[in-house]
Amino acid sequence: MMYWKKISVMLLVCSLLHPAKAQVIKPATRPNATQQALLQRGYGMFIHFGINTFADVEWSDGTIPAARYQPDQLNPDQWVRIARDAGFRYVLLTVKHHDGFCLWDSRYTDYDVAASPVKTDVVKAVSDACKKYGLQFAIYYSLWDRHEASYKDHRAYADYMLHQLTELFTGYGTIAELWLDGGWDKKPADWYLPEIYQLVKKYSPHCAVSVNHTIVNEEDKRNYTVPGDMTTDNQYFFQYFPADFRLWDPRLANLADKKQYLHEGQSYYLPFEHTICLSKRWNWFEKSVEIPTRDLDELEELFYWCTSNQNTLVINVPPSSTGLIRDYQANAVIALGKRLGLKKSRALPQNTKRISLLQPATASSNYPDASNRYTASAINDGNMETRWASADTVAQVEMVLNDREPFDRISIFEYQDVKNDPDGFSQWRIPRIQAYSLAVYNNKEWKTIYVSDEPIGDCRVIRFPRSYQGERLRLSVTRASAPPSIYEWNVYHAKEQQQR
Amino acid sequence: MMYWKKISVMLLVCSLLHPAKAQVIKPATRPNATQQALLQRGYGMFIHFGINTFADVEWSDGTIPAARYQPDQLNPDQWVRIARDAGFRYVLLTVKHHDGFCLWDSRYTDYDVAASPVKTDVVKAVSDACKKYGLQFAIYYSLWDRHEASYKDHRAYADYMLHQLTELFTGYGTIAELWLDGGWDKKPADWYLPEIYQLVKKYSPHCAVSVNHTIVNEEDKRNYTVPGDMTTDNQYFFQYFPADFRLWDPRLANLADKKQYLHEGQSYYLPFEHTICLSKRWNWFEKSVEIPTRDLDELEELFYWCTSNQNTLVINVPPSSTGLIRDYQANAVIALGKRLGLKKSRALPQNTKRISLLQPATASSNYPDASNRYTASAINDGNMETRWASADTVAQVEMVLNDREPFDRISIFEYQDVKNDPDGFSQWRIPRIQAYSLAVYNNKEWKTIYVSDEPIGDCRVIRFPRSYQGERLRLSVTRASAPPSIYEWNVYHAKEQQQR
Repeated sequence: MMYWKKISVMLLVCSLLHPAKAQVIKPATRPNATQQALLQRGYGMFIHFGINTFADVEWSDGTIPAARYQPDQLNPDQWVRIARDAGFRYVLLTVKHHDGFCLWDSRYTDYDVAASPVKTDVVKAVSDACKKYGLQFAIYYSLWDRHEASYKDHRAYADYMLHQLTELFTGYGTIAELWLDGGWDKKPADWYLPEIYQLVKKYSPHCAVSVNHTIVNEEDKRNYTVPGDMTTDNQYFFQYFPADFRLWDPRLANLADKKQYLHEGQSYYLPFEHTICLSKRWNWFEKSVEIPTRDLDELEELFYWCTSNQNTLVINVPPSSTGLIRDYQANAVIALGKRLGLKKSRALPQNTKRISLLQPATASSNYPDASNRYTASAINDGNMETRWASADTVAQVEMVLNDREPFDRISIFEYQDVKNDPDGFSQWRIPRIQAYSLAVYNNKEWKTIYVSDEPIGDCRVIRFPRSYQGERLRLSVTRASAPPSIYEWNVYHAKEQQQR
Repeated sequence: MMYWKKISVMLLVCSLLHPAKAQVIKPATRPNATQQALLQRGYGMFIHFGINTFADVEWSDGTIPAARYQPDQLNPDQWVRIARDAGFRYVLLTVKHHDGFCLWDSRYTDYDVAASPVKTDVVKAVSDACKKYGLQFAIYYSLWDRHEASYKDHRAYADYMLHQLTELFTGYGTIAELWLDGGWDKKPADWYLPEIYQLVKKYSPHCAVSVNHTIVNEEDKRNYTVPGDMTTDNQYFFQYFPADFRLWDPRLANLADKKQYLHEGQSYYLPFEHTICLSKRWNWFEKSVEIPTRDLDELEELFYWCTSNQNTLVINVPPSSTGLIRDYQANAVIALGKRLGLKKSRALPQNTKRISLLQPATASSNYPDASNRYTASAINDGNMETRWASADTVAQVEMVLNDREPFDRISIFEYQDVKNDPDGFSQWRIPRIQAYSLAVYNNKEWKTIYVSDEPIGDCRVIRFPRSYQGERLRLSVTRASAPPSIYEWNVYHAKEQQQR
């Protein structure tokens, strides 16, 4: 560990010499300039594109011939134009995935676009389009490389990475973010991250750098805490240091997400960047099958969930093997941007106040479980990993409200059963809840404010044309195909306070 | 028939004497002043309330004791306030249904509110509230009366009706519309309609009068044509004369609905008033069970369907046995009004142009049927009574488009299977289509513009954030629980012509 300490001291000296730049992570309880820029960007389009796009796979082992890469309508300008039209603030491109295939002509490998039938430098095309459309440019680079011959020699491979990153950081203008992945394949120290970090900051001083699975439960042990549980300051540790923000793809942070993380006895401020797929399933590289996108209600709710509380969001919108983003996916993110008014101001839109968080909740039954995982309190705990489940198909769940808080919007995230479709990519999502109603209790009576016999599904947003106030809110499930289960049930403060 | 002719001549003479008033239906090919006022109103709230509300039935036979009528929170002001908030232009109240129970204290019967525990004159309360909130007031009155002792003596019962209508038309200010029902229980002549018509016009000269099932296939025969088939001028006949508009509850007019109808060799102009339930099922008097409302997409599409083409729409929003309209139903119509912008101008909003109507359509298969009822052409024939059905669960249907017409909105009305719920009132609506996509063909390639794995259901509206143009449009059903079947598939001209 001596090496680490030396680097830390060196970085500290650097930062003291250039205090105005503040580009290097230092113990702090507030965002530094790099982090402020990251939070201000806030909402990016993730673009997975590469050799896997042409093989209908998520990951490959570096042996797919470069000749397979052959988009017949390659058009990175279209990708970034869609990002601009959708109101994204930056684009995050997979310049190299675990397979080692590079989207630019790298001097240090033959496994790249230059060795393929379509030699366009995609990194340049995307970074140029970002300049053209006024978006920031960010890159994803996999540490894990299943193709590169030097990979097993840690030092030699670190040099390979440093050479490639030098190409990337000197050839394509300012890079806002470096997203490193696949760290699990070697010990943290074997990646020589401090050298990577230093190189990056030399060329793009405010580039935000991180490695997937940034945080662990104990220093020097690979024992992870998911973001849904990171609700205590100074309890968890850097696995990869230095890093400017946290990553834990594709998990969602807790609404009580904390920002202070430890390294060698010091506490650092670290926001979290969410990574989600536009697609309803875990689908990073686009497939030959057209997989449905999440619907607008869910995307809107996830946008607010992920961009609130000093965290950020990237949504993956991958081009297909034609080299174009498919229209139905472009339509989904552009419609989301329109709904959110993302192009109306520089600042991202804010949700109204969530008045349901941690309010006392009770249910007609809880699904029996030795560790008591399915209790009603899971329904508004701000944690998308936990859920309430009933023991019966007919069920009621209630939460106490503050009757001085008017509300006009409710969202429900249902747990769905999932079956794999015979096509190998599609899934059948089977909502359990088929009919339900919502009622509010006020002045000693229950008033039904919503009745539906359409399934809830992944996420349903119910908007009221007036505001309500009440002491309690009840969700009655009147018909279900299996015991209903709900991740989160959100109630939002009214935009306008008028009442009928 | 001599009597009819005498009355006709008399009416003609009246109208010649008062040509400026033009309140009496005359042969014409354009709307008269009464009809113009009807079309200008255009959108009304139907209110079914009465003895049936307290017995959980649609119809009763006149033997339910008046004592059963006992709303404990009767509040007609709330009904009309909701109508106002929802942007309705008039309220149509059932002052007497087939059971004969009257919502006002009628001198001519004891079967009315005055004989019940809650003596409020509901007709007065509603007409007063209409004045207060600036809405027009209209009444539904059943010809068929299962309580009134004089009913079997046609002349005596006609006098009973004339007396009651005199009470109604002299006691409650101007009445915009008289909706007569239950005509099937006697021969048309036995209702003495010309006398009713004359009486009405005497007190409210521009009151529009009609009888349910206004039109028949042949003069003097009870052989009905549903509005979906009324696509030829001067082919069908008045069953009930005189009448100012057509009724055929609860059917929908054809988009090629015609307006010229015959009576004794003369052709009359007659718009059609649609009557639909807010509820998803045929549910006129409110039940103890809370039945779901149609969703906003369907209501919006039905609004445009029913108010276009010189026709009008009333939506039934019935108060419950408390005497109040339930909140979830008020929310549905108010949200609809907000979405349509009904309170922004006096004129009703217009739909963009439907570019799919009667375009050539083909399908991968048609459900086998001797009379060829389920062909692809049913899918855009402007007739909500006809439908295409596939022979297989996997199916495709295509329509030819004019590629110079940009579109940005598509709606699909699916035929659903329906099962009755054990509660006796609710229904299970079972969509067949579970996953589908839309693609447009242009410049020799198919482009997928929408993909969904959520059921279509009664009506799904798909809005695109850009406009498309193409030579053909394809709906691919990729998963269904039964052979898919679609009533109508509408494609609408783009609001803005910008393209990506």
